[in-house]
Amino acid sequence: MAKNSLGREIPETFNGKSYIPYTDPHSIKPETFHFQRASRVLKRNYSGAGKVVGSLREAIVASGLKDGMTISTHHHLRNGDRLLNDLVKEIDALGLRDIKIASSSVHIVHAELIPYIRKGVITALECGVNGPIGEQISRGELECPIVVRSHGGRARSVISGEVPIDVAFLAAPYCDEYGNFNGFYGPSACGSLGYALVDAQYARKVVAVTDNLVPFPALPISVAQNIVDIVATVDSLGDPKKIVSSTTKLTKDPMGLQIAKYAATVIDASGYLKNGFSFQTGTGGISLAVAGHVRDMMRARKIKGSFGCGGITGFFVDMLDEGLFEGLFDVQCFDLKAVESIGRNRKHQEMSAGLYANPFNMGAVVNRLDCAILSATEIDVNFNVNVNTESSGLLLHNTGGHCDVANGAKVSIIVCPSIRGRLPMVRDEVTTITTPGETVGVVVTERGIAVNDHLPALKAELIRRRVPVKDIRQLRDEIYAVTGAPKPVEFTDKVVGLIEYLDGTIIDTVRTIRD
Amino acid sequence: MAKNSLGREIPETFNGKSYIPYTDPHSIKPETFHFQRASRVLKRNYSGAGKVVGSLREAIVASGLKDGMTISTHHHLRNGDRLLNDLVKEIDALGLRDIKIASSSVHIVHAELIPYIRKGVITALECGVNGPIGEQISRGELECPIVVRSHGGRARSVISGEVPIDVAFLAAPYCDEYGNFNGFYGPSACGSLGYALVDAQYARKVVAVTDNLVPFPALPISVAQNIVDIVATVDSLGDPKKIVSSTTKLTKDPMGLQIAKYAATVIDASGYLKNGFSFQTGTGGISLAVAGHVRDMMRARKIKGSFGCGGITGFFVDMLDEGLFEGLFDVQCFDLKAVESIGRNRKHQEMSAGLYANPFNMGAVVNRLDCAILSATEIDVNFNVNVNTESSGLLLHNTGGHCDVANGAKVSIIVCPSIRGRLPMVRDEVTTITTPGETVGVVVTERGIAVNDHLPALKAELIRRRVPVKDIRQLRDEIYAVTGAPKPVEFTDKVVGLIEYLDGTIIDTVRTIRD
Repeated sequence: MAKNSLGREIPETFNGKSYIPYTDPHSIKPETFHFQRASRVLKRNYSGAGKVVGSLREAIVASGLKDGMTISTHHHLRNGDRLLNDLVKEIDALGLRDIKIASSSVHIVHAELIPYIRKGVITALECGVNGPIGEQISRGELECPIVVRSHGGRARSVISGEVPIDVAFLAAPYCDEYGNFNGFYGPSACGSLGYALVDAQYARKVVAVTDNLVPFPALPISVAQNIVDIVATVDSLGDPKKIVSSTTKLTKDPMGLQIAKYAATVIDASGYLKNGFSFQTGTGGISLAVAGHVRDMMRARKIKGSFGCGGITGFFVDMLDEGLFEGLFDVQCFDLKAVESIGRNRKHQEMSAGLYANPFNMGAVVNRLDCAILSATEIDVNFNVNVNTESSGLLLHNTGGHCDVANGAKVSIIVCPSIRGRLPMVRDEVTTITTPGETVGVVVTERGIAVNDHLPALKAELIRRRVPVKDIRQLRDEIYAVTGAPKPVEFTDKVVGLIEYLDGTIIDTVRTIRD
Repeated sequence: MAKNSLGREIPETFNGKSYIPYTDPHSIKPETFHFQRASRVLKRNYSGAGKVVGSLREAIVASGLKDGMTISTHHHLRNGDRLLNDLVKEIDALGLRDIKIASSSVHIVHAELIPYIRKGVITALECGVNGPIGEQISRGELECPIVVRSHGGRARSVISGEVPIDVAFLAAPYCDEYGNFNGFYGPSACGSLGYALVDAQYARKVVAVTDNLVPFPALPISVAQNIVDIVATVDSLGDPKKIVSSTTKLTKDPMGLQIAKYAATVIDASGYLKNGFSFQTGTGGISLAVAGHVRDMMRARKIKGSFGCGGITGFFVDMLDEGLFEGLFDVQCFDLKAVESIGRNRKHQEMSAGLYANPFNMGAVVNRLDCAILSATEIDVNFNVNVNTESSGLLLHNTGGHCDVANGAKVSIIVCPSIRGRLPMVRDEVTTITTPGETVGVVVTERGIAVNDHLPALKAELIRRRVPVKDIRQLRDEIYAVTGAPKPVEFTDKVVGLIEYLDGTIIDTVRTIRD
């Protein structure tokens, strides 16, 4: 074990691989890992014949998948996804074992995989998870080493070859028999295929899985035939009703509205809310309420923004259509309005996870962000943020783009209620560090606003505007006065997961909780 | 020297590199060359600051270009291109020497480079040329080893790393300060950037050169910021009037019209002219006349084609807009109507040269072609085709997509007058083999049609239709009866160029002519 720069104990090896402890947000380079080249196997196919097989099982066999290999899927169908569950069932039926999953994310619906993990069909997760799988792993009830990566970090790991994907099984909502596809149209349309674009380009074998085979050519092309090995047809990719996220409504909760109002004030005070403004929010009700304020200010002041970014909602689509942004960079569509827009408006740009947030290239889109609204399960007095575990110590959430966006944006704003379920959200220490405090600008709670030391001008301006700016330790004290100091979760020494920072270093670990 | 399978003498090494003689159209695999991986250097840029430098000279310095390195440009601006000429002048002014050019093509306007070749600034051409440079090389008047590659072969050589490009200088008609660009809009709009897309992805350094810097982000993105190192601003990328090809009018010449009519009959007789038909022609007057007949037949029979492909003209745009094709695959726009269309219609798909015709991937678009119209400077009795040299022995033309399309299309149709300038176009032997006869289906002249042995059903159908089908030797004899047998060009033993087949093997050489 070695301590990283944030004081967290990091094992030198995990599940047979060695890792480097986290140092700082920006100094790590590809050379640090000897990852100097992205690469992909070259092949030759001179036949113009279709590549269609009629089932997932045939596709698995044709792909050459073997014991010990790594597969991936993308999570654009979110909790409506059927593909990963069906795939693992077929892999089991074929007698394959010791398969690693390196999907872009795993959702609650994939709790169906648990029996296959117990059975040894799946033996490692090279990706973060939402829900029961992570919970059971961190309870010590499920043996499955897990490495949690951000969206940008995952793109990096695939592109650099750190996590070689043997076969990518990519849900392809609008696909032709030679393997051209997009996600814009069809019964399982999910819009942007941002995460899948990386796998399509770097996996050793690519299987396009579709429930909607259309006449050649499927245009416009998001993933092209020249990188697709096999097309597999299935009855359904998933449940379209659950494909879109449901958390896309503005909050009506008064506390949430107060937080949103403060966050909007922070954005206004930052000085970036002018022509050329760029902005990212998530889907939470508070985030959308902030976006509402931002839209109103842009309208009132006739501001023409540069771009909106991230997972895209109908709210941002309306802002684009209204002319408030030049364009949208979309790594995943969060609702059907976004899906409809990306299929018609070329200023609504599909963006790969690599372009979005991979740190190892000539400049990700997050680098150009002015202000970003991010969430938290916990924040500590050094501005470190946890989004992976809850205060119970259970691994319940994937990182998403959290540390990527905080790293890139000029002002990253964490919005969070001060208290959740009687537990303090601002604390001495977070249970797990997802995002280093050095990359966090402002913490906004309904009880006050804490500004990090690297933004003194913003702090002064907020004080001038008479919003309740507080030292983060003062904010913690006020919260503790209500909740009491939180009891530390008791962990065993057993490391069952790593939290990887976007640059590939390890920022924290997940250990099993002690009952 | 070793004889390849077509009987041409091939040197084992050329300009310090070793080469493999041509064997056949399909058996060569990436493994033959130990090119098993495509690759690109990984970098880290976490700054969101613009990448703009104010001149080509600053860009060259910033790129780190050194003596002995290889540069590339793309030829979408064709004979209106100013960039390559300006670039080489600046390279000379900086005192750099021994630079290799691996552009997608070099045009007549680049005769300006000749003094810099003489001076040792440019010492090799890893690409084909049109016009004076090739002429002088094949006359022995200019020392500059040249390897001529097809569009697909060039993509292969760049992607596989066979020809590593140190710095790509890519004309970027619509570009933002962080390096996103497309070719759709602006004073130098050229539409598709098909050839440049390969360089952008695989060159070690990428410089976007623009005369039209637009607010960030430049959408839609053809080349993205994450693979662009430097943005250089210049006054002008070229002369827009010469950017578009002028050979985009239907022929009015009676002989050309006769050839076009026969070629259309061949297409009709092929059995492929039905729903799902796919088609490629070039820009020549005869090709367009064939396209006219095809359009009329499709209209009359209510045929919905699959796709049109290649360099795209307004003629194909009209066919798309009329609903005669599902879509267009566009590697380069040949006129302003095509430029305008690709910027508005997503069924008009920009296509990289790799997707178009690289043989080393999971399937190029040429593989899906039913019928293609191709030109020739000479044809021999084994159906081998020359498009590189003329009967004078002078290297005057680049290969373009000729051998790629012949390799991929089900029926490749060579249209050619039987006699040009009193010289026979069908001969015992072609001066230079560009495209092997095995991949050529039909030769159409005004004097008769020759069908290759691998298409017996087509031959029978054409005979049934009472068009003048002739054995190719008979066709040669009839032509020789008018012109006499051609005097063989006398060559020296000095090999000054190689003609590379799309798979990387050498199909022929260029030797200097003896005066």
